[in-house]
Amino acid sequence: MKTFSLIMTAAMFLGLAALSQADGHSEHHDAAPTMRQYAEFNEIGNPADVLTVKAAAPQALESGEVRVRVLAAPINPSDLLQIAGQYGVAAVLPAKAGSEGVGRVVEVTPEASTLKEGQLVLILGGGTWSDEVVAPEAGFLPLPDLGPLAPEVIEQLGMSVVNPVTALLMLNDFVELSDGQWIVQSAANSAVGGYVIQLAKQRGIKTVNVVRREGLAEQLYAKGADVVLIDGPDLAEQIAEATGGEPVALALDPVGGETYTRLTTSLAYGGTIVAYGMLSGQAATLNTGMAIFKDIRNRSFWLAKWYESATLAEKQATFGKIIPLIASGVLTADVDSRFAVSDITAAVTRAAQDGRNGKVLVVPAPE
Amino acid sequence: MKTFSLIMTAAMFLGLAALSQADGHSEHHDAAPTMRQYAEFNEIGNPADVLTVKAAAPQALESGEVRVRVLAAPINPSDLLQIAGQYGVAAVLPAKAGSEGVGRVVEVTPEASTLKEGQLVLILGGGTWSDEVVAPEAGFLPLPDLGPLAPEVIEQLGMSVVNPVTALLMLNDFVELSDGQWIVQSAANSAVGGYVIQLAKQRGIKTVNVVRREGLAEQLYAKGADVVLIDGPDLAEQIAEATGGEPVALALDPVGGETYTRLTTSLAYGGTIVAYGMLSGQAATLNTGMAIFKDIRNRSFWLAKWYESATLAEKQATFGKIIPLIASGVLTADVDSRFAVSDITAAVTRAAQDGRNGKVLVVPAPE
Repeated sequence: MKTFSLIMTAAMFLGLAALSQADGHSEHHDAAPTMRQYAEFNEIGNPADVLTVKAAAPQALESGEVRVRVLAAPINPSDLLQIAGQYGVAAVLPAKAGSEGVGRVVEVTPEASTLKEGQLVLILGGGTWSDEVVAPEAGFLPLPDLGPLAPEVIEQLGMSVVNPVTALLMLNDFVELSDGQWIVQSAANSAVGGYVIQLAKQRGIKTVNVVRREGLAEQLYAKGADVVLIDGPDLAEQIAEATGGEPVALALDPVGGETYTRLTTSLAYGGTIVAYGMLSGQAATLNTGMAIFKDIRNRSFWLAKWYESATLAEKQATFGKIIPLIASGVLTADVDSRFAVSDITAAVTRAAQDGRNGKVLVVPAPE
Repeated sequence: MKTFSLIMTAAMFLGLAALSQADGHSEHHDAAPTMRQYAEFNEIGNPADVLTVKAAAPQALESGEVRVRVLAAPINPSDLLQIAGQYGVAAVLPAKAGSEGVGRVVEVTPEASTLKEGQLVLILGGGTWSDEVVAPEAGFLPLPDLGPLAPEVIEQLGMSVVNPVTALLMLNDFVELSDGQWIVQSAANSAVGGYVIQLAKQRGIKTVNVVRREGLAEQLYAKGADVVLIDGPDLAEQIAEATGGEPVALALDPVGGETYTRLTTSLAYGGTIVAYGMLSGQAATLNTGMAIFKDIRNRSFWLAKWYESATLAEKQATFGKIIPLIASGVLTADVDSRFAVSDITAAVTRAAQDGRNGKVLVVPAPE
């Protein structure tokens, strides 16, 4: 029943830098055992239809295992695609749902000696839409000593390893961007879009942010957006006007279809467009004649493959940048709503709705 | 009246290695001056409509200039696109037509000291659909001493700097191909397609060659093709069957439209497709979802930009590979037909027809 593990291979990034977290919480394990709830799917389909809430009494740990109490786990678009069978890797059924999250170590075995009770960890092995996760020690990434953390910051850390990593790598790995250069992105009001704005701002990169409805500009400008535009047939012209004709070197697109085609058209000579989703469900049109004369490069980004192929040093470097920026509040994602594990159907329904104001989190009830 | 110069910047590649060619030809310049004919266009449009044949008495050379008698000049698809206004660089009108060719030096000035009378040269400055080309010395690339050359080989050398360079760079610059790997190309019966087959064969790279009509397989197998397929909706399946499911790492496509889309679908994980033309006139469909999960890389190649940006060393290395392979007969293009400059309308009409059996050459009448 091992589930899809986006980031299992990411274990132990920060192992040596990790210090015990002891910021006043204490857990009592001598209470009568409470049933632990978790979200599971045993068939591929619409997440609201196929997810069920299961409950089990706490199992005794096996040698080398660690028990982590989940504090917060986001519902990412890739989670919903995976459950719906629209992802590049098929789930092995039955599967526990949820790909990332933050938790606190509540029990260790003598053989699991790196982690300590009370320590904050990122959960790397999946199955995070649960009250607790039991896994070998390598399935958890101990957070470095970040000082006392507000619950809101702990929630933000629970979203570290999917969206902020995606944003950082897409900004770093395709085009050498320098201070003052323009990039463009669609679905700029998504969590990844917000991280892109914040990371670009930090580096002095200017962002054109494309959204599909009115009413989002203010919040994107607050994050650091330079330009916010509404998608439409004249998007490439809007972008040229907004940048004063300055070249756009990089486009990031999770939408596909016409939006992808328009962003491609807006690129300068030698520009790169990176696809990382297909929210529209539509294929794009590619004018290969234009691509030749403008040397357009069409690339893509899939985080799961990065976790498979990146070296330990690359992962450590990436997390070493992301986690302090989240802990210090530079990188944040908006939170739309919070649901208990028992309300997973309502949670995924909300997560699939247009017009959300941020991430939907699964936040287990305190024990 | 300086014309489009694809390769002006390529001058002097092999200058120091050049030796005088003295294989029995002799030219007599004390005859009464004959009118020199050349093909010119003074408006953008269908080449057969806008090209006119002009004639002029030979001009006296200015300081540093060289007179070259044209021996053979091909009609390339890019020439026709340029005249029709469908190329990435607009012609400056009026423009002498023709972008490459081979000729023999018939007159030099004292200031042009590298070139010698009787020497074979490639013509780099354009205007090659002419009886003669007069230009500064740097507009010609002296060929190294290749020994006595048959007229057919001299014709082949006249096609050195456009199609064989395109084929070589597309095979070298995008994907590290190793012995036994598969690539696929469309329009495999084009001149570039033939050079790709020959260059791939030399390196042990296996080729799937896609064409749009029956009757071409035999000549492509004779060039070294491993597989020849007819394009159709099931092309990706045909390719998978032909390779026994082995991965296809690189696709080369000058067609665009559905053919481009099908070649993209046939690529293995991490595969690259390089567009270098748009013969169909149709945009392609790009499934960005598939591109993400398969890490497909969509690139393009435009020779004019390579000539602009490549270093002298890169150009020398490229020509140092191509020219000996042509001179020794390893690399050849089929010749469909030969026309005098005065028949330029018939020549471009033939060059634009489907079902040709090779290149159309402009071959000035012997003086």
